[in-house]
This record gives sequence, structure tokens and C-alpha cells, in this order.
Amino acid sequence: MNQIKIFAPASVANVSCGFDVLGFCLEPVGDQMLIRKTNSSGIKITKIEGQNLPLDVKKNVAGVAAEALLKAHPTKSGFEIEIYKNIKAGSGIGSSAASAAGAVYGINELLGKPYTSHDLISFAMEGEGMASGTVHADNVAPVLMGGITLVRSIDPVDVIKLPIPKALTAVVLHPKIELKTMHAREIIKKNVTMEKAIQQWGNLGAFVSALYNEDYDLMSRSLKDEIVEPMRSMLIPEFESLKKASIQAGAIGFGISGSGPSVYALTKGIDGAKKIHSAINEVISSIDIDYEIHISKINEQGIKILTD
Amino acid sequence: MNQIKIFAPASVANVSCGFDVLGFCLEPVGDQMLIRKTNSSGIKITKIEGQNLPLDVKKNVAGVAAEALLKAHPTKSGFEIEIYKNIKAGSGIGSSAASAAGAVYGINELLGKPYTSHDLISFAMEGEGMASGTVHADNVAPVLMGGITLVRSIDPVDVIKLPIPKALTAVVLHPKIELKTMHAREIIKKNVTMEKAIQQWGNLGAFVSALYNEDYDLMSRSLKDEIVEPMRSMLIPEFESLKKASIQAGAIGFGISGSGPSVYALTKGIDGAKKIHSAINEVISSIDIDYEIHISKINEQGIKILTD
Repeated sequence: MNQIKIFAPASVANVSCGFDVLGFCLEPVGDQMLIRKTNSSGIKITKIEGQNLPLDVKKNVAGVAAEALLKAHPTKSGFEIEIYKNIKAGSGIGSSAASAAGAVYGINELLGKPYTSHDLISFAMEGEGMASGTVHADNVAPVLMGGITLVRSIDPVDVIKLPIPKALTAVVLHPKIELKTMHAREIIKKNVTMEKAIQQWGNLGAFVSALYNEDYDLMSRSLKDEIVEPMRSMLIPEFESLKKASIQAGAIGFGISGSGPSVYALTKGIDGAKKIHSAINEVISSIDIDYEIHISKINEQGIKILTD
Repeated sequence: MNQIKIFAPASVANVSCGFDVLGFCLEPVGDQMLIRKTNSSGIKITKIEGQNLPLDVKKNVAGVAAEALLKAHPTKSGFEIEIYKNIKAGSGIGSSAASAAGAVYGINELLGKPYTSHDLISFAMEGEGMASGTVHADNVAPVLMGGITLVRSIDPVDVIKLPIPKALTAVVLHPKIELKTMHAREIIKKNVTMEKAIQQWGNLGAFVSALYNEDYDLMSRSLKDEIVEPMRSMLIPEFESLKKASIQAGAIGFGISGSGPSVYALTKGIDGAKKIHSAINEVISSIDIDYEIHISKINEQGIKILTD
């Protein structure tokens, strides 16, 4: 196999009580990438469509991630990458993670899979690090491993795949305003009160338990974030109205996706998701910005190979 | 039924990554209590053996907890409480929690069980509050509900019972020096860095997952505490040596029990626990203090009625 075409999906990270550790993979939205093994060594990004992003491998998350892999696994072959972006950079649904994960996934396949999905996280993280200014794994992990993931540690990388309650469905709103991850990081405080930290880990522990027991009521009680949301939500237009409308329409939880401006709601089943879609649409259409709303099951597989 | 004799067990709270939220119930150590329904209203503590504690109901955790229950559930009857203490106050294995939980459990039984175990937590917490200066539920919850519990919230009370991996066994060392919970609370900082808080909730989420999957390796990787242990461990003689010896003897985790001075190790099986018992004994016997070491399975039932 000398070339591979893949689908690198979007993802939701910083899931309320799971700031910096919890993420899940989406199904309908994602980039396509074509990766080709060549005889000349090194990484080349030969084409990017759909977004104005640098072809320079040192300045592109896919290039940085790919080079991290090749540094750990030297080979005589080189790789050319074509990227067909559908996920907008700065949208908060893991645009850079998709590119970084896609590059290392594709190259790993063409090398005959020397690495597991879990192994690939650290390479993809290096790409992410360039995009956001800090190294984090909560988007690349669900893209590479699929489903819902918990990043216990990034040094060393230790990621746990959590169970996916069957009916769990996400609604994601992407208001098309740009919010740089690096900027959204800046407004996060360096310290938190012990009291709020305890609430957060109590909620995260409960949310993990709720996933195992498919306990939607407990998911709802525990999907809270009193640490980051109060700060970052100010950057998102109509955040409180969107949250209120979603919860009234039956969402079990609502919060910021990644570092925003996208927001997510979780609910039970497609019908529930459609109600939330309508509720969100009513709020967001009242202001003058472009937006997209996606309904998505949790993508259990994550990144995948496309066959033409 | 006009009187009831109960066994109110000791418990381990603040389980490493689960500061203020995670606790488990012990089997072999505990108090006995005799609770008698009388015709004169109100609570009386008529006898305390084994410890020098106040008979005044307003100054005794059992009395405060019992009065909290009766305030919510007025009745013409009164209750007399006899307490036979085996758990030393200030030991860090839930002495006050056993008394508070025992009082409300016994009275609830004699009233015909108007409350569930989960309901009783809030009454027992009021007793705990008097002892420690802050209201917390991570000892009374596992005593009342049994097993391993996660306190998601104390206002309102929301406690989740977690699964107990079959082989999970605790070793608890009680060095007989007194450490007031209130004092141990004082050295806890009011703020934590975001970085350490994220590590803590990543570890707690992973530990909960590990309990569901009986994944002892993951339990071991996640039983960490970089927030409270670095401060409180200084108050505990030979803490680092005890920890090192326990881990070398095969413990999957080691930490402070409650607010100390007791420490706990968790391991797989009774044979593993015996090895840790020896290792701990070797370290602690080298210094001149009295101590007790207990080996205990996780007590799934919690508090129970004794039949003579």
C-alpha cells in the first residue's frame, strides 16, 4: 500500500467537568486527507483545500505531528500529505487535532502499523502543541481511539477509553466567529479554589460512573463546569440563552466545545437531538452571525480509512 | 422493636486522588452502639465506654446527628444512645463518622425506616460538621451505604456507590498520635494550581473507570495525590518510608486515611495485604510510638444490626 485516503473527524474536548481530560469524537464532520509514500525522505504537504493554512511542514500541525512520528521511527521513505479541510480552524471542534491525528494515523498505516492508536497520541500532541501553545491530548485522543476518552496523564501519555451509552447523541453549534485557542487559554486562571476543584473532580468521577451505568440522570447532574465555563462563556455570543434553551429542550448537559466558540449539548437519542437543534437554531438565528449546527452520534471508531 | 444494637465500622476517606469525595468502608474495626426508644422525647447519651467523650448531646457527634434527624422527622418518642468506642477519636479512620452514622442509622431503624441510607447522610454530616469544623460526607457515606462511595455533591447530597473489585483489600496503619481533623484542615491551601487540579481529576476519573473494569494497573497509576498529601504527609511519622515499603511490597496505592495520622494501602488479595502488613510493621516498629495495623476487605454492607 503506497497511498491512503482517510477521514479525520471533528471532536469535542473539555467536556464540562472534564476540562483538559475528557473528549469525544463526532461522526458527520471531518477532514479528508490523502497520504502518499514516496522515495524521497521527509514530509511534504503538497496540497491544502478548504482553508488557508501553511504548506510549510514546520508551521502546519499535520507536518509537525508527522515529523514527530518519523523522528521516533526513522525510515528511508518520505510522505506527501494532501489535506481537504472541512473543519474550520479555530472552531473549537478539533480542527488542528484532526489534521495532526490524520497525518500520524495515515503514515502509521503506510508503515505497516508499528504503533497502536494509543502510541500515536504523543506524536499528534506535538502538532496540537504548535496550534494551541500548550500540549494537550483531549482532542487527538478521541480522534485516534474513537468514542469517549479520558486523558489521565500526558506525561507519560495514559488515555482510557470510556464506555459509550447507546443513545448518547451530541448537538454541536459552531458560531462562525474566530476564537484562537491561544487567546481562549489566556483567560483561564492559573489557580482555582480548592472548593471548586473538589466540585469538579466529584462531578468528573460521577460522570465516568454514569457512563458505565448508562445513568442519564447522573450524567445530567454531573455535566457541570464552574471553573472554566464562567470565564470562557463570556467570549461566546448568546451562551446563556443557548444553554437555557438546550436544557429546556431536554439536553442532559450543555457546555463549551474545546476552547469555543463552538458549544455542545448531549442528549438521549436522535429525536431529543432534533428538539435541541430547533431550540438552538431559534436562539442563534436571532443574531447576525453565520453558524452551523451538527447532530452526531458518538463516533466509536474515530479516524478511518476511506475506500473509493 | 424498641432497642437495637449496631456495629458502626471505621472508614477511609480522602482516598488519594479523591480528596473530600472518595471513601471506603472497613470491616474489622468499628464501634458498637445500643439505641433504645423511650417514652420521653429527645435524645440522651446515657453511656460512653472506651473513650473520654462528652455525654452532652450538643457536644457529641452522635447527639448532633440524632437531633438533626429528629428535627426533620418529629416524633413523640425519645432515644437513648450507648456508645462503645473502639475507633479512637482523631485516628483518621472515621471515628466521628461511625458515631454520627450509627446514631441516625439506629434511630431510623427504630422509627420503621422512614429514610434510605442515602437520606441519612445529610443528618450524619451535621454530626461530622461539629467534629471537623466543615461539613463533609466522605466518611459517613461509605459507613451508611457500604463499599466505595463517591460524593458528587454535599448540597444537595448526591452520593454514588462504586463497584468493588473482588480482590481489593486494604491495610490500614494507625500510628497512635493524635491529629485533630480541624488542625489537619488548617494546613490545606485555599487554592490549587490549575495544573495540579487537572491531574487530580484526570486521576479520579481514571480510578473510577478502573473500579468498573477491575483494572488494578490503572488503579495503581491513578491512586495519586499531588494536592493534599505533600502538605499533610509532613504531619505523619515515617510517611515516605511507609509509602515506599508498601509500594515495594506490592501495594497498588498508598496514602493518608482521612486527615491522618492513619495511612492506608490498597492491594490485591489477602496474601498481598499480609506482605504489606509486614513491610509497614518493619518501618513503624523502628520508631517509638504505639500503633495498630488492620487488614480489611472492603466492607460492602457498611453499618449493620447485631443480633445477640
